Amino acid sequence: MKKNNFSTDQTVPLDVPLDKRAHYLKNLHTLTKDTGRLFIFAGDQRVEHLNDDFYGENISLDDANPEHLFKIASMARIGGFATQLGNIARYGSHYPNIPYLVKLNSKTNLVPFSEQDPYSAAWYDVREVVAFAKSSKLNILGVGYTVYIGSKFETAMLHEAARIVLEAHRHGLVVILWMYPRGQAVTNPKNAHLIAGAVNVGASLGADFVKINEPEPVTDSGLKEIISAGGRTGILFAGGQARSLDEVLNSIYLHVNRFGAAGAALGRNIHQRSTTEAIALANAVAGIIYDGHAPETVRRLLIKE
Amino acid sequence: MKKNNFSTDQTVPLDVPLDKRAHYLKNLHTLTKDTGRLFIFAGDQRVEHLNDDFYGENISLDDANPEHLFKIASMARIGGFATQLGNIARYGSHYPNIPYLVKLNSKTNLVPFSEQDPYSAAWYDVREVVAFAKSSKLNILGVGYTVYIGSKFETAMLHEAARIVLEAHRHGLVVILWMYPRGQAVTNPKNAHLIAGAVNVGASLGADFVKINEPEPVTDSGLKEIISAGGRTGILFAGGQARSLDEVLNSIYLHVNRFGAAGAALGRNIHQRSTTEAIALANAVAGIIYDGHAPETVRRLLIKE
Amino acid sequence: MKKNNFSTDQTVPLDVPLDKRAHYLKNLHTLTKDTGRLFIFAGDQRVEHLNDDFYGENISLDDANPEHLFKIASMARIGGFATQLGNIARYGSHYPNIPYLVKLNSKTNLVPFSEQDPYSAAWYDVREVVAFAKSSKLNILGVGYTVYIGSKFETAMLHEAARIVLEAHRHGLVVILWMYPRGQAVTNPKNAHLIAGAVNVGASLGADFVKINEPEPVTDSGLKEIISAGGRTGILFAGGQARSLDEVLNSIYLHVNRFGAAGAALGRNIHQRSTTEAIALANAVAGIIYDGHAPETVRRLLIKE
Amino acid sequence: MKKNNFSTDQTVPLDVPLDKRAHYLKNLHTLTKDTGRLFIFAGDQRVEHLNDDFYGENISLDDANPEHLFKIASMARIGGFATQLGNIARYGSHYPNIPYLVKLNSKTNLVPFSEQDPYSAAWYDVREVVAFAKSSKLNILGVGYTVYIGSKFETAMLHEAARIVLEAHRHGLVVILWMYPRGQAVTNPKNAHLIAGAVNVGASLGADFVKINEPEPVTDSGLKEIISAGGRTGILFAGGQARSLDEVLNSIYLHVNRFGAAGAALGRNIHQRSTTEAIALANAVAGIIYDGHAPETVRRLLIKE
Amino acid sequence: MKKNNFSTDQTVPLDVPLDKRAHYLKNLHTLTKDTGRLFIFAGDQRVEHLNDDFYGENISLDDANPEHLFKIASMARIGGFATQLGNIARYGSHYPNIPYLVKLNSKTNLVPFSEQDPYSAAWYDVREVVAFAKSSKLNILGVGYTVYIGSKFETAMLHEAARIVLEAHRHGLVVILWMYPRGQAVTNPKNAHLIAGAVNVGASLGADFVKINEPEPVTDSGLKEIISAGGRTGILFAGGQARSLDEVLNSIYLHVNRFGAAGAALGRNIHQRSTTEAIALANAVAGIIYDGHAPETVRRLLIKE
Repeated sequence: MKKNNFSTDQTVPLDVPLDKRAHYLKNLHTLTKDTGRLFIFAGDQRVEHLNDDFYGENISLDDANPEHLFKIASMARIGGFATQLGNIARYGSHYPNIPYLVKLNSKTNLVPFSEQDPYSAAWYDVREVVAFAKSSKLNILGVGYTVYIGSKFETAMLHEAARIVLEAHRHGLVVILWMYPRGQAVTNPKNAHLIAGAVNVGASLGADFVKINEPEPVTDSGLKEIISAGGRTGILFAGGQARSLDEVLNSIYLHVNRFGAAGAALGRNIHQRSTTEAIALANAVAGIIYDGHAPETVRRLLIKE
Repeated sequence: MKKNNFSTDQTVPLDVPLDKRAHYLKNLHTLTKDTGRLFIFAGDQRVEHLNDDFYGENISLDDANPEHLFKIASMARIGGFATQLGNIARYGSHYPNIPYLVKLNSKTNLVPFSEQDPYSAAWYDVREVVAFAKSSKLNILGVGYTVYIGSKFETAMLHEAARIVLEAHRHGLVVILWMYPRGQAVTNPKNAHLIAGAVNVGASLGADFVKINEPEPVTDSGLKEIISAGGRTGILFAGGQARSLDEVLNSIYLHVNRFGAAGAALGRNIHQRSTTEAIALANAVAGIIYDGHAPETVRRLLIKE
Repeated sequence: MKKNNFSTDQTVPLDVPLDKRAHYLKNLHTLTKDTGRLFIFAGDQRVEHLNDDFYGENISLDDANPEHLFKIASMARIGGFATQLGNIARYGSHYPNIPYLVKLNSKTNLVPFSEQDPYSAAWYDVREVVAFAKSSKLNILGVGYTVYIGSKFETAMLHEAARIVLEAHRHGLVVILWMYPRGQAVTNPKNAHLIAGAVNVGASLGADFVKINEPEPVTDSGLKEIISAGGRTGILFAGGQARSLDEVLNSIYLHVNRFGAAGAALGRNIHQRSTTEAIALANAVAGIIYDGHAPETVRRLLIKE
Repeated sequence: MKKNNFSTDQTVPLDVPLDKRAHYLKNLHTLTKDTGRLFIFAGDQRVEHLNDDFYGENISLDDANPEHLFKIASMARIGGFATQLGNIARYGSHYPNIPYLVKLNSKTNLVPFSEQDPYSAAWYDVREVVAFAKSSKLNILGVGYTVYIGSKFETAMLHEAARIVLEAHRHGLVVILWMYPRGQAVTNPKNAHLIAGAVNVGASLGADFVKINEPEPVTDSGLKEIISAGGRTGILFAGGQARSLDEVLNSIYLHVNRFGAAGAALGRNIHQRSTTEAIALANAVAGIIYDGHAPETVRRLLIKE
Repeated sequence: MKKNNFSTDQTVPLDVPLDKRAHYLKNLHTLTKDTGRLFIFAGDQRVEHLNDDFYGENISLDDANPEHLFKIASMARIGGFATQLGNIARYGSHYPNIPYLVKLNSKTNLVPFSEQDPYSAAWYDVREVVAFAKSSKLNILGVGYTVYIGSKFETAMLHEAARIVLEAHRHGLVVILWMYPRGQAVTNPKNAHLIAGAVNVGASLGADFVKINEPEPVTDSGLKEIISAGGRTGILFAGGQARSLDEVLNSIYLHVNRFGAAGAALGRNIHQRSTTEAIALANAVAGIIYDGHAPETVRRLLIKE
């Protein structure tokens, strides 16, 4: 399998100061398990989607309790678990081994985009995250932040994202930017050319990885344009709405092994299952991303209760 | 009765630094009287509802004087008395024994939601509260802050709430978030699924307790979804509009003893009565919340002038 | 006459630190002439009403010159003279004996409320006022700030007012809040119940005194509700539009001696007269407020040119 | 001729600290040439009016080059040359002898008032100007700032103006406020009573001089009301649109010698002429303002190419 | 050929402190290759135009990869390469010899001007750029910032631009301002008189160079008015949309050698070609700007694959 070239010093961006390079590389190698690839377990939807993703039809009752996410994150072979700092502070002492990513901003879905373009400010400065990491002794490897390009509030988020990257790198943390075209001016957020543009913005902001949605329709030229736009910045595809196990595994394999994406970020597709099923699925995904296995190889790991 | 597990170190959130854990636990144990449950006497309506709750038909004349609240708070068996710092500064020297909670933000009800989505900024930084606590030697155990999710100004309040939690925990203070869905985008703020979402947001912000409204209608599945969403974060139900004594006591018992809520926050239901009646009612409520008594047991404490 | 209980230490709010209590009490005693009552000469209208109050029909030509206010304030028996710091800095060296109150915010009346809800930010931090007081050696006893509750910008002013009180008290200064319901959501700003609500807000913000408009109509129950809402916070009635001498004196007597208001704040009613007449009227008002005299007793002090 | 009373210490406003009084007086005496009067050469229109005032019909080609303003300012007998710091930094090393005033805020005229009320934030803090003055060794005597009263953004500009005065005085700099009623709520910005109100606001903000437009129509009572409102604050009339030489000289003489204005601020009327003509006109104006000469006396200084 | 007079100390603006003059002059001489002229390779469009300029018809596939820009910048004879700091941090260690300019603000083109006037805040403070330059040891010679005059948000950008110039000069960095009239109030952004006004604003802000669009139509009088407005501030014309090689070379020659412009800033015209062609074109442009060659002289450098 193709390996991203994270193995030498040259891959450390220059806004990481000399005395933080080792720390940055350690964080990066932990997240990528030395492969240059990354599998994020996304657990920030309790704010973004309120209780819709956690309670209802076709959702395991396990998911009604916030601790469910921590159980999965602590037992499955993920690269990083992204959630809000408040959750990490509350459950972290029981789950000290999780590789944490602090999602810095979140908003609810109550105000529709037709009423107001989205704006989501960071809840914390990176320095506060660094202080928390030090004081809690938890394994905080990086931070995440969502940018809605195309929103009328775009400039505030670009400004904040740029400073988050600079400050996080200054402290040796890895940065993932969620890059989403959104707002009344955005009529087709799944357009591949537009998503490639979103990658451009995330890369220009200095992100180590950008998380984007899969384009619709999925075409070879579209995926190629997107991955190419990333350059040395890793591309992570979001899992999106719940799909069949086969669809999930096949699409990750396509992105990563055929087109050179850096990995995936999955939330609902994992946590809406029972703890056991969720862990099994996460491990199967890890087999594709970190080991380069084919879907048919990892499918044996799955459990269907 | 069921006891919340606040008895060990592991219940202290990790954003409380090591040297403030003892202080945090002392504050928590004072508020919860070592039960893990909490009864708040809410006295911040003089701003929120102007003089509507304090003067008029069916309201004791005792309530026309702001000192009424302090008399009740100092003599009844409450967990914490939440009001604005200005009131505490003015009356605190005469009522030094009250367990105080500083309500950090407040707004009037003059601008209707149909005219403008609500926004209520904190009046003080937590550091100012900490300095006041030290200088005044009063018993300030924690802080409260209201978040209106669904408001167009939601992101400013989420940002402020997150920082308040972090800063309060940094100083060993307990945090209660008032979580209310409000604004033109919110058509049914009493919907149980939405309230569970509000709990999610408050928990993700790192609150120790979230104060919410009781859903309408009250259903078993709704209450279960809400309490479950809290996880290790305590759920407090607000008292709401004035109700009969029986209704008040029965509903608290239902929430706390049948569904595992952490407690209640009552204002009008208590302070619109004469000082004597109010203290008696508060003591009855304390009997349910802190001692696990049934309504019929505590009803003998009530006084009806 | 009834005396407010400002004579003991217990009346010092607890946000005044121990080492500033003596300074605060000295300021308070100077303003209230040891009676607990307060007579403010309000001289901030040059911004609020531009030149309307100072030049025109029925206005003495003396009032066309800004120094007129300082002449009155230096020679009449007032408690405090409230005006903008820029004026104090310009004329203060010639009028060093005046008991000054710095009015921190002001706005013009050019934009009608129907076009935009009012918002008036503080021109200075309290710390700058404290530095000015020290450097100028002037007699700065306190600060004033206007809050427009009901304005869409209310939350910004509540936030600023709360911090001004805290900071002023921290430095031993007395605080007067001008509490005015204003904005498109306020249809009846002179309603007694609403004014009582404004008092609640000012008291909750920690003001030592709140300045309000007289309700319309003036009823016993309305005045009683308002004064009662103040609690330990003093109520000052504004003078409002120019009225006859008898009306002015009678209404102050009614407020203070019959209902227990702390005093009055007069501007136009005084300064639109010639310097000699203005001083005489101010002294008559002082006789009612500070000495408890009846209007008929002080009327002999008046001069009518 | 009448002399303003700037000759004693008492004229120094009290927000100038003791150790900066000598510096303030030196700046004031340089600007006023010991007469208490002031002639400003206004050179900030390159932003305010873009290139309209500098290139076109009836404008000397000399005015197309930004250095033209500096040539005039360095050779004519002006009191102060007001322009943006960027220009001063660029040309200052070649024109070190000019008495400079830094105009702190400027906006273009592209957005019409019917589209948006004007708002113009300061480009620099006064402290940055002070640092620049020290580092450049240029002769920076004071600062200027425009306030648009009546704009919906008025409160931001009042706040900023007040702080600029305080900070400038703290460093011994003289302050001139451009006071202009503007915005959709202002239907008659040239009304004398309104301009007197603008003077009130500027004086209350603590300005040493306020620059205003001449009222329309020009009446004795209007000019008297305006000058009287200034009190100890000097009144400067703006030159406005290009006029005949006689009109310019006569109107300055009227303002200063008949009504007691402190002086004038001229821009276009001077710089749209050739360098030689412009210098001659400026010297004639200086003769009226600083020497009290009559227009017919100074007219011999003029050059008409 | 005409040389700009950058050879003596007097050309250093006075906001560059004494101890940074040598550093400023070194940066300026590197950018201008001691000619006083400047050729910028503009590489900030990945945000401004998303992926439109980098992938599609008539665009070399080389341009799909972000590293393409760095290859050109490192091998062609440019004066400065302007791009976002995030890109520089990511690729800088492989391209340490490039003369970098950090473009401080950028926005996407998703929100049309008809929906909202443009506003683009700086992503970084200049101090952060300075810290990055020091820590990365890269060759950061200056900064760039775009100002949209005529936008309803103009005042925020003027404020920010002024402070960027001051801070950059304080650290010895060269400043280029992109000056673009934009917004609903701007009906003809290519009008020469308006562009001359934009130059006025950029010069008054203290820029060393202003980058503007070529006026339409291109007339002698228009170009003369624009260049004259610059005075000692250098004028750079933007390349704009892709044009024929002859058009590109001829227009630069016209601007620089006939009218005295300081140079040009080209992006798309260069980078949409293959790496080899792009480098050849850039070298031809450098021949005109830096050596004063005629288009026919440099045309032999071109490569057409």
